[in-house]
Amino acid sequence: MRLPRCHGPLLRGLNLPWAKALGGGVTREYGTGEIFHQMGDRVDALHYVLEGHVVAKAVTPEGVERYVLGFLPGTIFGQSPFFNRAPAETLFVSVGHTVAVALGRDYIYGEVAQRHPSLLLNLLESDAYRHRVFGRHIADATLRDLETRLCRFILHLVTEASDPVPVEQALTDAAAEVHARTGDEGAEGPADCSARCHSGASALFSHPGLTHEDVARYLGLHRVTVSNLLGGLRRAGVLGQFNRKVIEVCDGAELVARAGMSGDGDRWP
Amino acid sequence: MRLPRCHGPLLRGLNLPWAKALGGGVTREYGTGEIFHQMGDRVDALHYVLEGHVVAKAVTPEGVERYVLGFLPGTIFGQSPFFNRAPAETLFVSVGHTVAVALGRDYIYGEVAQRHPSLLLNLLESDAYRHRVFGRHIADATLRDLETRLCRFILHLVTEASDPVPVEQALTDAAAEVHARTGDEGAEGPADCSARCHSGASALFSHPGLTHEDVARYLGLHRVTVSNLLGGLRRAGVLGQFNRKVIEVCDGAELVARAGMSGDGDRWP
Repeated sequence: MRLPRCHGPLLRGLNLPWAKALGGGVTREYGTGEIFHQMGDRVDALHYVLEGHVVAKAVTPEGVERYVLGFLPGTIFGQSPFFNRAPAETLFVSVGHTVAVALGRDYIYGEVAQRHPSLLLNLLESDAYRHRVFGRHIADATLRDLETRLCRFILHLVTEASDPVPVEQALTDAAAEVHARTGDEGAEGPADCSARCHSGASALFSHPGLTHEDVARYLGLHRVTVSNLLGGLRRAGVLGQFNRKVIEVCDGAELVARAGMSGDGDRWP
Repeated sequence: MRLPRCHGPLLRGLNLPWAKALGGGVTREYGTGEIFHQMGDRVDALHYVLEGHVVAKAVTPEGVERYVLGFLPGTIFGQSPFFNRAPAETLFVSVGHTVAVALGRDYIYGEVAQRHPSLLLNLLESDAYRHRVFGRHIADATLRDLETRLCRFILHLVTEASDPVPVEQALTDAAAEVHARTGDEGAEGPADCSARCHSGASALFSHPGLTHEDVARYLGLHRVTVSNLLGGLRRAGVLGQFNRKVIEVCDGAELVARAGMSGDGDRWP
């Protein structure tokens, strides 16, 4: 079945039209855990993600961490503290290896505003999308149970936030990983994965490499809660594997049902 | 004491620079409960509030209502469905009498974008503020207890969302209301209110006329919960009156402390 799209906090390709304006910025690589902006920083540049995964993370004085939004390739981050001209309220940090372009305030308020107002309209459009994501999140957090929220997040991962790697490639990678681990092509081996996938009984999806801990931080839950919920979905035959490389959906219709959605599209609330 | 500002969901004056572009729109009056956009509507105009109070309201299939944002004079609403070009996910409805100007898509994407790119920057700036409000809301809803959230909302009402009516005026209005109700100037009468306020022991603030039910809808709580929490704050000597006209703050320092904030400014989280 074709799974319905589900909006969520990982943003991809929202600002692709900015590709033509990146010449006015400075490109840099960032390593795992490298910080773009600290909480409290003044932010005088927008960043455009070329490769990788950046998160906006809130940290309480007690040390509880929460991922507020994730930025994947083709998306601009830092918009809130940049345009609000107030200290950043979240930390912006690279998850893995990231390549990003910094675009300064003078450039945005000068050349971009005067010569490319359509790019400001694009920012407004991507902002509107982010508002939608936040609005849903607030409603879901208030009104929905944990399993429903997790199922929505999984649908979001596999339909909106997936890496642009063909499922065939994900299959091969997953198979290679299993092969490397087990040394043979056993019950979890590639032939079996492919067979199940190609039979339509299950499907593998690549995703931006999230651990259970990352999922927990996006949903504001404990890691153990997420692992337990995933275990429940596995035992119920809804999901198969869920690791940093792939998510295996065994019963898409049931996943959609448990997400409180219809199969034919994204519904609100 | 001077109370610290506290960001919240009622937005005022964020888009004042648009005053110069309102000639390109259509001005209309709206009565109590009149709907601007239904959930599911396509929205092809931005609205600028000249007078009144408009809320963006989410309603679940079960009929639970939630106020997502409130729009007070000088603020534009409808931005999310307008720029997202997707069906509205909230209902936009007038609370009381409202005057608003509708600005169409052709006008925004044409004349405004070409001749007033600074107004697009203003929309991005006000959007950034709204993101900040949403981000706080998500963190608060996850991490804060109900009394803390209510105290933050009250600080928001009295420091950010107040009507631009001088406190003196609010005092006189409140006194007149009490006078009209009781027929005399008793314990709750104007002389007493003024004396307490002017002594610095308490202060009265006007606000956009919210009922306990409205407060509950903004916070995602039951009306009874809000009334009980307000009762607790009253018994503890933190608040005095809380009605549709005024909020009386008897112990500002304690209100700030219970909101988990410092007295010298808005702190995150």
